[in-house]
Amino acid sequence: MKRKAIEKHLEWGGKIEVIGKAPVGTSEELSLAYTPGVAEPCLEIAEDVNKSYIYTRRHNLCLVVTDGSAVLGLGDIGPEAGMPVMEGKCALFKAFGDVDAFPLCIKSQDVDVIVDTIYNISGSFGGVNLEDIAAPRCFEIETKLKEKCDIPIFHDDQHGTAVVTLAGLINALKVVKKDISDVKIVMNGAGAASIAITKLLISAGAKGENVLVCDSRGIIYAGRPEGMNKYKDELCEIINLEHKSGTLTDALVGADVFVGVSAPGTVTTEMVATMADDAIVFACANPTPEIFPDEAKAGGARVVATGRSDFPNQINNVLAFPGIFRGTFDVRASDINQEMNVAAAHAIANIVSDADLNEENIMPHAFDERVTPAVSEAVAAAARKTGVARI
Amino acid sequence: MKRKAIEKHLEWGGKIEVIGKAPVGTSEELSLAYTPGVAEPCLEIAEDVNKSYIYTRRHNLCLVVTDGSAVLGLGDIGPEAGMPVMEGKCALFKAFGDVDAFPLCIKSQDVDVIVDTIYNISGSFGGVNLEDIAAPRCFEIETKLKEKCDIPIFHDDQHGTAVVTLAGLINALKVVKKDISDVKIVMNGAGAASIAITKLLISAGAKGENVLVCDSRGIIYAGRPEGMNKYKDELCEIINLEHKSGTLTDALVGADVFVGVSAPGTVTTEMVATMADDAIVFACANPTPEIFPDEAKAGGARVVATGRSDFPNQINNVLAFPGIFRGTFDVRASDINQEMNVAAAHAIANIVSDADLNEENIMPHAFDERVTPAVSEAVAAAARKTGVARI
Repeated sequence: MKRKAIEKHLEWGGKIEVIGKAPVGTSEELSLAYTPGVAEPCLEIAEDVNKSYIYTRRHNLCLVVTDGSAVLGLGDIGPEAGMPVMEGKCALFKAFGDVDAFPLCIKSQDVDVIVDTIYNISGSFGGVNLEDIAAPRCFEIETKLKEKCDIPIFHDDQHGTAVVTLAGLINALKVVKKDISDVKIVMNGAGAASIAITKLLISAGAKGENVLVCDSRGIIYAGRPEGMNKYKDELCEIINLEHKSGTLTDALVGADVFVGVSAPGTVTTEMVATMADDAIVFACANPTPEIFPDEAKAGGARVVATGRSDFPNQINNVLAFPGIFRGTFDVRASDINQEMNVAAAHAIANIVSDADLNEENIMPHAFDERVTPAVSEAVAAAARKTGVARI
Repeated sequence: MKRKAIEKHLEWGGKIEVIGKAPVGTSEELSLAYTPGVAEPCLEIAEDVNKSYIYTRRHNLCLVVTDGSAVLGLGDIGPEAGMPVMEGKCALFKAFGDVDAFPLCIKSQDVDVIVDTIYNISGSFGGVNLEDIAAPRCFEIETKLKEKCDIPIFHDDQHGTAVVTLAGLINALKVVKKDISDVKIVMNGAGAASIAITKLLISAGAKGENVLVCDSRGIIYAGRPEGMNKYKDELCEIINLEHKSGTLTDALVGADVFVGVSAPGTVTTEMVATMADDAIVFACANPTPEIFPDEAKAGGARVVATGRSDFPNQINNVLAFPGIFRGTFDVRASDINQEMNVAAAHAIANIVSDADLNEENIMPHAFDERVTPAVSEAVAAAARKTGVARI
């Protein structure tokens, strides 16, 4: 696989290409697409900047941008080294969502430099997808960009992951006939993805008081003396209202749902055995999950999902981001809000019909062609409903 | 034309499109182009940043960037309004040079903000084409970017214009059988294009002491009390060494060559009549030239060129920039220097065979398919010769 990936990357010489849509093969064509004809759309945009969405590619153009600080599981490998991932993401955007996506890497890890750089070029794009940026920097960058820019800012490692996780949980709960507002949920990991998932589950109906989040030191709670940061502090204002403390093992006792975005092998069969009946285990550490499906099943888990394509129930972001941006662009939304994310999750979940739904089949397949249209429609409707749609 | 240009721009919905080159339609393809396969090229680039040129599109990717401050003849119409021109330029890059070019506009007119923004994203590109940026800001931006970046920085409004003008002059001088080192040259206009043309003509053999540059106040000379700036001062260190003063009318007396990049109607038949025998008149103000060809001919001009496609001898940048970047990218040059520009001009001029060369035919046609290969070969060879080629 490694050798073949290298060979293919050399053969492709880049996974994206910029092509011209306007013919420029005759003098008349040149006069229309370039000078002097091009002056007219320029002047119309100068009068009303919104017209940049109809006269340029902006309406369909997503910036895919990284600082190279948290590339896949490889860590801080530098901006240029992050580009093969960015290009791959752009290829997925086009193939799955018909979104033109362009990859850029930024030669800085300073929050304000990154924010200013993206803001300065934001007039060229309809939206921004942040990618592979380390926490907690990614939170600050996202917050500041949302304040400065009038186009949607989306951090797929947070919100895309949260959407597919919620989609899986919606269907897993149908299988075990439990209600999201009743279930006790334990998250493992307290990084960007985990915090985003937790917030989205609460937006979708989970009760904050029923949620515990663990990091490597165990359950996080307000005022815990070690290993906290302002993002964990904020989270503790809405979860674990009883200030429970203890280990992940303690947290899992009686829990209905486990969601891991943490590290390989952190959950055992014995730990799963202490969970409630019909437990749901999402072990999403990649490529090695917190617990393998057969071990979780041995502990009594009824529904198990992972991030891997070689087990049932793959939790895969590609189900979410193409349709989310497709729907966002279709209504020229100014933001991608939680209502849109929740709508996307329900749309993904609903692709699996009641007849097909079972323990081993809670997620649509990554290549199911019904996913993007369903997600984009739901997202566009939610954008309209929440007042962020601009057309 | 105006109505049709608007209709076409609406129909195109943007003149560029970003497409994927790597297939992502099966699980195996996804594994190669994206995770986990993509990790390999990432790691190789992390070890040696030069490998970004072989594993990503960088090797063929040119940034086309503006601040929207001097768009065509429209002036400072804002960043978003400049985008139709940038997209048009990108379509030309692809059609004429097979260069992937991506358009960006920057929401600032501050030199350092523009420089920092472009530098911050320069790791994604093989080269930068500055476009439609007002003087004197464009000089400072170009100079600072050349210092900071390890990729070529080219300002087409300066250097592309200079290359095609020199190409035309090389052939015009063949027609009139004069030598570039002997001729007296008068430039009208002292902006970015004029200064770049003047410097390139000198690089190609014109004698600085034989060159006069006029602006709206007349001939510029060292120490002129009004209307100077540091760029005109610098120019006066290499031209007009006799400190001539006077009007454009004065300057033209006895001149062999007039090159106008100034304003409509600034030259009369009577003024041309005072020039030397076999005078060459390049009246490049657009769309209305300094003097129309029939008027210049009436004054005795032997060779007349303009920027227009409806007269003979069109001076058109599209003859230059696609081949210049093609050749630059082919050898991964770190700079585009004057030797490369001079080589490009000679290559363009040489497309017109001695048999075809005459007063009405000094320039190749914009759609002549021999131009880009000839220019790119010459530019690549000059890059190798001057030590800026990296492969």
